[in-house]
Amino acid sequence: MNAPVPDTHGSVGIVEPKLLELDQGVTLQCGEVLPRLELIYETYGDLNQDRTNAVLICHALSGHHHAAGFHSETETRPGWWDNCIGPGKPIDTNRFHVVSLNNLGGCHGSTGPRSVNPKTGEPYGEDFPTVTVKDWVKTQAMLADALNIERFAAVIGGSLGGMQALQWAIDYPDRIGHAVLIACAPKLSAQNIAFNEIARLAIKMDSVDGSSDEALPGLGLARMIGHVTYLSDDSMGTKFGREVKSGDIEQGRDVQFQVESYLHYQGSRFAQTFDPNTYVLVTRALDYFDPAIEHNDNLVDTLQPATAKFLVISFSSDWRFSPERSNEIVDALVAAGKSTVSANIVSNMGHDSFLMDIPRYFTVLKTYLASVADELDA
Amino acid sequence: MNAPVPDTHGSVGIVEPKLLELDQGVTLQCGEVLPRLELIYETYGDLNQDRTNAVLICHALSGHHHAAGFHSETETRPGWWDNCIGPGKPIDTNRFHVVSLNNLGGCHGSTGPRSVNPKTGEPYGEDFPTVTVKDWVKTQAMLADALNIERFAAVIGGSLGGMQALQWAIDYPDRIGHAVLIACAPKLSAQNIAFNEIARLAIKMDSVDGSSDEALPGLGLARMIGHVTYLSDDSMGTKFGREVKSGDIEQGRDVQFQVESYLHYQGSRFAQTFDPNTYVLVTRALDYFDPAIEHNDNLVDTLQPATAKFLVISFSSDWRFSPERSNEIVDALVAAGKSTVSANIVSNMGHDSFLMDIPRYFTVLKTYLASVADELDA
Repeated sequence: MNAPVPDTHGSVGIVEPKLLELDQGVTLQCGEVLPRLELIYETYGDLNQDRTNAVLICHALSGHHHAAGFHSETETRPGWWDNCIGPGKPIDTNRFHVVSLNNLGGCHGSTGPRSVNPKTGEPYGEDFPTVTVKDWVKTQAMLADALNIERFAAVIGGSLGGMQALQWAIDYPDRIGHAVLIACAPKLSAQNIAFNEIARLAIKMDSVDGSSDEALPGLGLARMIGHVTYLSDDSMGTKFGREVKSGDIEQGRDVQFQVESYLHYQGSRFAQTFDPNTYVLVTRALDYFDPAIEHNDNLVDTLQPATAKFLVISFSSDWRFSPERSNEIVDALVAAGKSTVSANIVSNMGHDSFLMDIPRYFTVLKTYLASVADELDA
Repeated sequence: MNAPVPDTHGSVGIVEPKLLELDQGVTLQCGEVLPRLELIYETYGDLNQDRTNAVLICHALSGHHHAAGFHSETETRPGWWDNCIGPGKPIDTNRFHVVSLNNLGGCHGSTGPRSVNPKTGEPYGEDFPTVTVKDWVKTQAMLADALNIERFAAVIGGSLGGMQALQWAIDYPDRIGHAVLIACAPKLSAQNIAFNEIARLAIKMDSVDGSSDEALPGLGLARMIGHVTYLSDDSMGTKFGREVKSGDIEQGRDVQFQVESYLHYQGSRFAQTFDPNTYVLVTRALDYFDPAIEHNDNLVDTLQPATAKFLVISFSSDWRFSPERSNEIVDALVAAGKSTVSANIVSNMGHDSFLMDIPRYFTVLKTYLASVADELDA
């Protein structure tokens, strides 16, 4: 057992991002070579003496390395998964050494479209090479090497993060004990790809009309499209109903319903911070994710190399990656003879459920990971 | 019985649109007055001597008056509902006199944003007043007056068209025998409104960047968003799968999957013909539609004045206006003591099912309307 971590407001407290410079570079799946790269990451909880209690958090579309705790005493919001990562929480920092990074191609400190292209001396922008889930897993393994972590006790992710955990189990079977796949799918459906393409076309409109960085309505629109697919019809109804801002029928294009104000706010806040080229890159990585494609679309064959144990979680009202999509993974895991635990959580919060502290969800996650920690201690 | 209409390729044959000029003008629900208006319409099948066999077709978001037949020998595609309207078809022109118009605010010949505003001498553009479903029904009744049709045997519509049929039953109980509501809802959900608002914001980007009429990528994007919500995840999967245009992982923002080509084509074709201000108007009319709002949100009370008989049809995979939304109408009709027949049709084609010749759907529609025609003949 590690020494208990001081419990600052129930969180991991103040954390500091670290930067890993990889001067050896990396060859990407598309064939392009990045001559050097940087990955920004954070860690929470102590690494044990045997270096066996590390878990890796893989982030989703708009996520980043800052998953838990606070960057300063004055930061008003903690990391994006602070409700789940911390002392005594489902991903328990009293027992695990948690590693969380910003993926390659991101816009929060890792090498990405805003980084300078050494060939041109200018930011990569839209010329940043196409990255894939496989590339992310490869560079995450490079981070593990640098941290002298031979094997993760677990790799955990929701949505696109779950796809990375699945790819880890396939590509690095010896380096992952457990894969925790939350609200994900073995590949995107045509509908998923369609929504991504509409988002990319919205972003393209920003560059066509030469908007400045300060006003990217297309990027905001892309975010709004995402938001609607993350929520359920039911949860949007509960949250906004059909609340009209004024009772009258009004002329023109202005906001009339509360749900419109919410979308405008979310879109414009996102457009102020996120990088449009990262959004394009990450949605393309989602589109391309399809590990079974190399095995004649046979997911069972694809999963054969895996030695990890699997926890697969889905949510009843998730229509972006529905429970049926998780079941495709579960069925293939069972057919491939892998140790698999699965849970479908009843929730009306849609895809966003994976970020919520839904009691049964967190109980399943906590008890599963407690048994993983117990194994390490045994 | 009418004399049989010659069956030209199973359709109503060559039809000619007619224009109704209403110099008395109309006061709209928003309070604005249109000093004069024109409505373009078509009719198929003969009006009987008693003038009792007229049925009105109400169109959906992007529809128009040209519902059946051909405008010329060389027209390659018939009207938008030609599979359903014609001799021997579910809406049988051997028995009914079918009236189909382009709604006020449209862009296919009726007064709308492209019409000249008499106050300015310029096209209305985005200053065209807000129109509602109630306004459409009112102006449809003005068309009926002009055609000397006191009462429609049936008012029929799918999607937004069904909402008009419902409003007819409430506003003109003495002038409608049957209301046929297909794939509709008693009001939009927050999710429905959200998709409409995203479409409007996309259109707004066209006017912000001053694009010409020839390239309206925002309007195209709005159409693509609509398309994805009209189809089901399942039907998109069947239609496109994950067919990649080339097997390689490619750089950049270009089309990679078949579903993307399809969306690009649909969006650009639509943007070449449809008017962006009409799209904004019509989506606002959808958002505002909520007949129960005047009765403390009590749909049962709202439906009390209706004397029409109702046929309500929904489709299993429709997630835009799901069977549950149709059931809200059915339950309120039953509670209000109205004659109600309802059918949920199993289909994997999503909301677009209402335009498809699905055997059980067309059988239900045909047998129901045959009994309506029999009543008239009795």
